[in-house]
Amino acid sequence: MAADEQGTPQNTSRDTQQGMTVAAFDAFCVEHLPFVAIYNFVTETLCTEGARVRLPADGRHLRPGGTICGPAQMALADFTLYAAILGRIGEVPLAVTTNLTTNFLRRPLPGDLIAEARLMKLGRRLAVGEIFIYSDGQDAPVSHVTGTYSIPPKDEATN
Amino acid sequence: MAADEQGTPQNTSRDTQQGMTVAAFDAFCVEHLPFVAIYNFVTETLCTEGARVRLPADGRHLRPGGTICGPAQMALADFTLYAAILGRIGEVPLAVTTNLTTNFLRRPLPGDLIAEARLMKLGRRLAVGEIFIYSDGQDAPVSHVTGTYSIPPKDEATN
Amino acid sequence: MAADEQGTPQNTSRDTQQGMTVAAFDAFCVEHLPFVAIYNFVTETLCTEGARVRLPADGRHLRPGGTICGPAQMALADFTLYAAILGRIGEVPLAVTTNLTTNFLRRPLPGDLIAEARLMKLGRRLAVGEIFIYSDGQDAPVSHVTGTYSIPPKDEATN
Amino acid sequence: MAADEQGTPQNTSRDTQQGMTVAAFDAFCVEHLPFVAIYNFVTETLCTEGARVRLPADGRHLRPGGTICGPAQMALADFTLYAAILGRIGEVPLAVTTNLTTNFLRRPLPGDLIAEARLMKLGRRLAVGEIFIYSDGQDAPVSHVTGTYSIPPKDEATN
Repeated sequence: MAADEQGTPQNTSRDTQQGMTVAAFDAFCVEHLPFVAIYNFVTETLCTEGARVRLPADGRHLRPGGTICGPAQMALADFTLYAAILGRIGEVPLAVTTNLTTNFLRRPLPGDLIAEARLMKLGRRLAVGEIFIYSDGQDAPVSHVTGTYSIPPKDEATN
Repeated sequence: MAADEQGTPQNTSRDTQQGMTVAAFDAFCVEHLPFVAIYNFVTETLCTEGARVRLPADGRHLRPGGTICGPAQMALADFTLYAAILGRIGEVPLAVTTNLTTNFLRRPLPGDLIAEARLMKLGRRLAVGEIFIYSDGQDAPVSHVTGTYSIPPKDEATN
Repeated sequence: MAADEQGTPQNTSRDTQQGMTVAAFDAFCVEHLPFVAIYNFVTETLCTEGARVRLPADGRHLRPGGTICGPAQMALADFTLYAAILGRIGEVPLAVTTNLTTNFLRRPLPGDLIAEARLMKLGRRLAVGEIFIYSDGQDAPVSHVTGTYSIPPKDEATN
Repeated sequence: MAADEQGTPQNTSRDTQQGMTVAAFDAFCVEHLPFVAIYNFVTETLCTEGARVRLPADGRHLRPGGTICGPAQMALADFTLYAAILGRIGEVPLAVTTNLTTNFLRRPLPGDLIAEARLMKLGRRLAVGEIFIYSDGQDAPVSHVTGTYSIPPKDEATN
């Protein structure tokens, strides 16, 4: 829909933006996202399709039943989707979550959790993705999350 | 809806259970929910209708834009609904969230947040509630959350 | 954030738009929303705060257990929120749902259903509301729905 | 927890139940689900992993913008997940949706829609699945849905 100077009409301007590398995203988080220090997230992969982030095991995230609490899973999912978006379109700090829906499927093991986010839509104003969370090394997901981010226009975002 | 000692058969045993007081719930959290220490939640009210919990301001919860990050809001909502359920039906540690859906409505101020949870359904196996989150002293909610908890049968729960 | 020629800075342009009346909305539905004829929705109230719509009893909406199927409830909720938005900001046909989340709470009686929608946020680009659905004459809601609509800019909408 | 005569302890009794065939499911729908006649759903596939259902093009489902309305998409998603569950565990008419969350991603073309449901969890009491909806022949999904069904115990279901 947006103009594209390269003449590829099906591309929106989002597609021609430069995404962030893991190193750049890590530096960005240290500077701008203090809550990341609570969770010690490790961003393992950022690519065009999505992102993969690890939540290291930590006794503070446990809950009755010897499992990992829901808030730690939701924080991981929200962060992984944010990583996926910035890994695709570059540094847009003011991208904000508008909706996050989590279905908790199975009791996680009390070890590391892995989240894999994949963008289902990247529009001019809204990005929608889904995130699966796994206990490290397991096949069956412990939770499934869908999230929507509102993306400010590029000229606002770079101010 | 309230206790019914007369044996009216349409009442389930949930209605005759004793809810937890704030003091009992606080002691329970210290023993069983280490993640609460991350957030320093203050449970202000537990009553038949619901619960009210405060998230004290903390620089670790800030995000770009000088506002409070989504994960802190979701942790607050999930905890407040858990408080509302245990405040109604008593100590059931293994009640677990099966779904939590958050709509982020407005940018919170960088101060305390207040969550108010209200049970919309309390069945034998599922409890569903809604939670509004406010910046302390403001009228317009910053987020709205619905959550479902799966409640184990009483005899399992007390083991 | 939006320009406001009247100089009342706290008002957005949305607040100064003229909402639709029930009669105007009914005429609009006949012309533009053929799916409404499937359900025979009756728009009872449109006001600043929200909308109230009735789904008349119809054997086609029944499902096993002698109750009303989920799709009829979701159609009613989505339509009632759309009514609430157009009742507030006027004829914006291209407002589209981006997210709808339904929690089914109780089995409806096999009669009319009533939906009451209330806007929780009306921004320049997104409107968020919640809808309670009741069996006519009952106090306990049969379902609770939250929905988000994306609202096109006024100049696009009037084309 | 359930007995398993084959002695494979990780299997629940759900896994040993006989699913429905497309022919049996079609006959069941004609008898028990009158709302299906509104939509003329065509169940194309039922298998262990999920179900695939077609919503034939119908002028009654159109909305402004020449596209297919959200309620038709949600009805299709809910029905396809129900098909996936009964295709896996057999005739359980009283399985009921407890939550359905839809993210509308793109404007559908005004032709047939295809829904593909996949079970993410099949527990004793809850089944959770995700559904992608496509315009027939297109690769990018028009909507993504997650749904939860509450499954009554087998002995209740067969009464």
